[in-house]
Amino acid sequence: MAKEKLVKEITSMDEDFAKWYTDVVSKAELMDYSSVKGCMIIRPYGWAIWENIQKIMDGMFKETGHENVSMPMFIPESLLQKEKDHVEGFAPEVAWVTHGGNEKLEEKLCVRPTSETLFCDHYKNIIHSWRDLPKLYNQWCSVVRWEKTTRPFLRSREFHWQEGHTIHATAEEAQAETIQMLNVYAEFAEKYLAIPVIKGVKTEKERFAGAVNTYTIEAMMHDGKALQSGTSHFFGDGFAKAFGIQFADKDNKLSTPFQTSWGVSTRLIGAIIMTHGDDNGLVLPPAVAPIQLVIVPIASHKEGVTEKATEVYERMKKVCRAKIDNTDNSPGWKFAEYEMKGVPLRLELGPRDIENNQCVLVRRDNGEKTVVSLDNLEEEVARLLEAVRDGLYNKALANRTEKTYEATTLEEMIEIADTKPGFIKAMWCEDRACEEALKEKAGVSSRCMPFEQDKISDKCVCCGKPAKQMVFWGKAY
Amino acid sequence: MAKEKLVKEITSMDEDFAKWYTDVVSKAELMDYSSVKGCMIIRPYGWAIWENIQKIMDGMFKETGHENVSMPMFIPESLLQKEKDHVEGFAPEVAWVTHGGNEKLEEKLCVRPTSETLFCDHYKNIIHSWRDLPKLYNQWCSVVRWEKTTRPFLRSREFHWQEGHTIHATAEEAQAETIQMLNVYAEFAEKYLAIPVIKGVKTEKERFAGAVNTYTIEAMMHDGKALQSGTSHFFGDGFAKAFGIQFADKDNKLSTPFQTSWGVSTRLIGAIIMTHGDDNGLVLPPAVAPIQLVIVPIASHKEGVTEKATEVYERMKKVCRAKIDNTDNSPGWKFAEYEMKGVPLRLELGPRDIENNQCVLVRRDNGEKTVVSLDNLEEEVARLLEAVRDGLYNKALANRTEKTYEATTLEEMIEIADTKPGFIKAMWCEDRACEEALKEKAGVSSRCMPFEQDKISDKCVCCGKPAKQMVFWGKAY
Repeated sequence: MAKEKLVKEITSMDEDFAKWYTDVVSKAELMDYSSVKGCMIIRPYGWAIWENIQKIMDGMFKETGHENVSMPMFIPESLLQKEKDHVEGFAPEVAWVTHGGNEKLEEKLCVRPTSETLFCDHYKNIIHSWRDLPKLYNQWCSVVRWEKTTRPFLRSREFHWQEGHTIHATAEEAQAETIQMLNVYAEFAEKYLAIPVIKGVKTEKERFAGAVNTYTIEAMMHDGKALQSGTSHFFGDGFAKAFGIQFADKDNKLSTPFQTSWGVSTRLIGAIIMTHGDDNGLVLPPAVAPIQLVIVPIASHKEGVTEKATEVYERMKKVCRAKIDNTDNSPGWKFAEYEMKGVPLRLELGPRDIENNQCVLVRRDNGEKTVVSLDNLEEEVARLLEAVRDGLYNKALANRTEKTYEATTLEEMIEIADTKPGFIKAMWCEDRACEEALKEKAGVSSRCMPFEQDKISDKCVCCGKPAKQMVFWGKAY
Repeated sequence: MAKEKLVKEITSMDEDFAKWYTDVVSKAELMDYSSVKGCMIIRPYGWAIWENIQKIMDGMFKETGHENVSMPMFIPESLLQKEKDHVEGFAPEVAWVTHGGNEKLEEKLCVRPTSETLFCDHYKNIIHSWRDLPKLYNQWCSVVRWEKTTRPFLRSREFHWQEGHTIHATAEEAQAETIQMLNVYAEFAEKYLAIPVIKGVKTEKERFAGAVNTYTIEAMMHDGKALQSGTSHFFGDGFAKAFGIQFADKDNKLSTPFQTSWGVSTRLIGAIIMTHGDDNGLVLPPAVAPIQLVIVPIASHKEGVTEKATEVYERMKKVCRAKIDNTDNSPGWKFAEYEMKGVPLRLELGPRDIENNQCVLVRRDNGEKTVVSLDNLEEEVARLLEAVRDGLYNKALANRTEKTYEATTLEEMIEIADTKPGFIKAMWCEDRACEEALKEKAGVSSRCMPFEQDKISDKCVCCGKPAKQMVFWGKAY
């Protein structure tokens, strides 16, 4: 009964995916709206997911030799303006601080939309010789972009992220770093979030402001739309030149260094929701789930049930993030509650289970029930958590495969884009005019030029001239 | 030689403590100045200390049932104004965002100086019944206060901190939370930072804007000045009333809840520097030191030295945060470098040590050398790290004891304040006029009314009327 009630509170995915999404973020208690339009409150359950993401990723950054730093949140207007392309990209969407206390500031400050300029200013101070290179820095922080339309986790005016900023003696080293970090992102997305991604290069039009090349991992959401899930930028020596960063090389000659930056954000939480969620709510990949296993005692008024459930809980919390729910809510209510919250595994334990020295494990991803002996529960839980991750990954991959199409003519492209949400693989001549025409006529943007190229045809899908690249096109968040 | 050179670069503490301090924060590479006045860059070595502080403290918060959340960084002007005392305290020193992109905002937003108003606004949304209480929340973030004079770590316009915000059904519960968190702070400061603190209550004049009571831990720096190192506030139901937060109690009657907040900041790094540092630079308590043990091979060109040092390093990194320095700098240069950086233990290993199956361990706090067999190195390192912590604590305690005075008359008070930097214990009638007179005539502020009261005399040190409290007075950072 209680379960029915709770489930009915959220919109069905197929009926209205956008409404389903906002229902899930609220009902699963991931976020709340704040009094500032476009800025959200990340509630404990949502923030715990982000903390798990941070913990794993920070470990991967440190293993690859990176160090964390903390830059100021403000950028003086003159500093933001030093790199021409960069300021053009960001100035229209920054928040400006004009007053401190009761006084007008001599120079207005923007709240950082990204911190390339701050890092460059610092590098200029601390880099003098080849011995000072490379610097492999990262920071976890929030940034602000004054977006017109916002959606929880996907696009908000303030959002949390990490931004890596590195500086190297040679272009080759910087280029290798860019690719290394893209691979870290891809591994993280696939292994820990169970989200398959396509690695590739952005077209010039979609490049980060100030970058020579932007690399990306692109994921497909349940509804067939793309989500750019992480980017890594190679800057060449453009920023270094604009900021006058130089170093004495081994021959004591002044040289200009090369830079990169790379970032992922709380968008990843949006990606998790839209990749794995279903009509019962959130479905969390075990690696980042705040609760991996919830124990629900059945008929807990019966003698010995609470005691045995607690004993099992004590064992389980040593091997995973376990929780026991001993509240007076009905088991049905609890089932619905933890399904809504996407807990990967549920453990049911009642009087008959106890008699038989067993319990029931239920997978959140596919509802599969397994009766398990209490003797080897640790192994079974570990195995099933792994199975949930694999199940989620394979389901997401099947969804992407099913919703990936090919087009060789503009008509085909428009037809697919109009009727079948998903990725469209099509050839491109590398002319920006064609990219813009596809946006206008088919409503799709280039997602990336994948590292793994397919040759679908010889001709550009738009103009028919010789093709140079196979591109993934699609509608995107 | 190299060592001499490096040491000379910093000012002596006794010569100019303020200059010594800024020398240490720069030379130990804790921070760099940014292009925004009063906002600093925390460099990897400084940030790693903060990360260690966060890790330990976050564990203590979670053990006491707290959850982390993330609030927006902006507060609309109207929200900041809801609690009268609070806005009076903070409005004069906030940074105002007036424009987003190219447009003027309808309502200006301040960058949070503290987040009580944001939490209240959220609590109003999510608290309806006694079942929703308590909420025990915390967030790690940075806040902004437009200070006129700034010093690295001690007072900066943007600073990092944690702010706990809790809400409870009864005043007693909230009051108990306030004290519990003060005790957590005191335990953290003494056990992990090796900084002895005095726990007590702030006078009304020194209270946090909007609080009924502010509790504090006060530490004494090497130069005898006080540093307020953590505060915990009991708000009564003032904020809840101002924000209209109510809940249905167990009898289904509408009640008003009670609140607390508590915080420590990157000031703690300033406290570490000024409590433990010496003329050779930083001295770090082992619990938060990014490097706990540095291994310096001696005569590393000799056969087998580098190999053996590396073998020792592989063993040591399993039991502590160890580093090996295999660069071509001289051992003397390395000694000075890691002394400057405050590494608690140095391990020296040369050809003769290897012959004798031993090494030399040198304590940073007192320079004591111990020759240790390589067979039980793990135990010796653990023992010495603990000894460094105890040594630091006892030295700081001795400094505080030595520099704590008593005064029974105003003349005595002025005399001590003028000639002997330190804490002055003196009785007070609880009249604000006397507190202000002491500030004006002796230049001291009330640090706290300690929980552990001494009765020094019957009369107020200032007016001679009957005394109600023994107060610690002093000059403060």
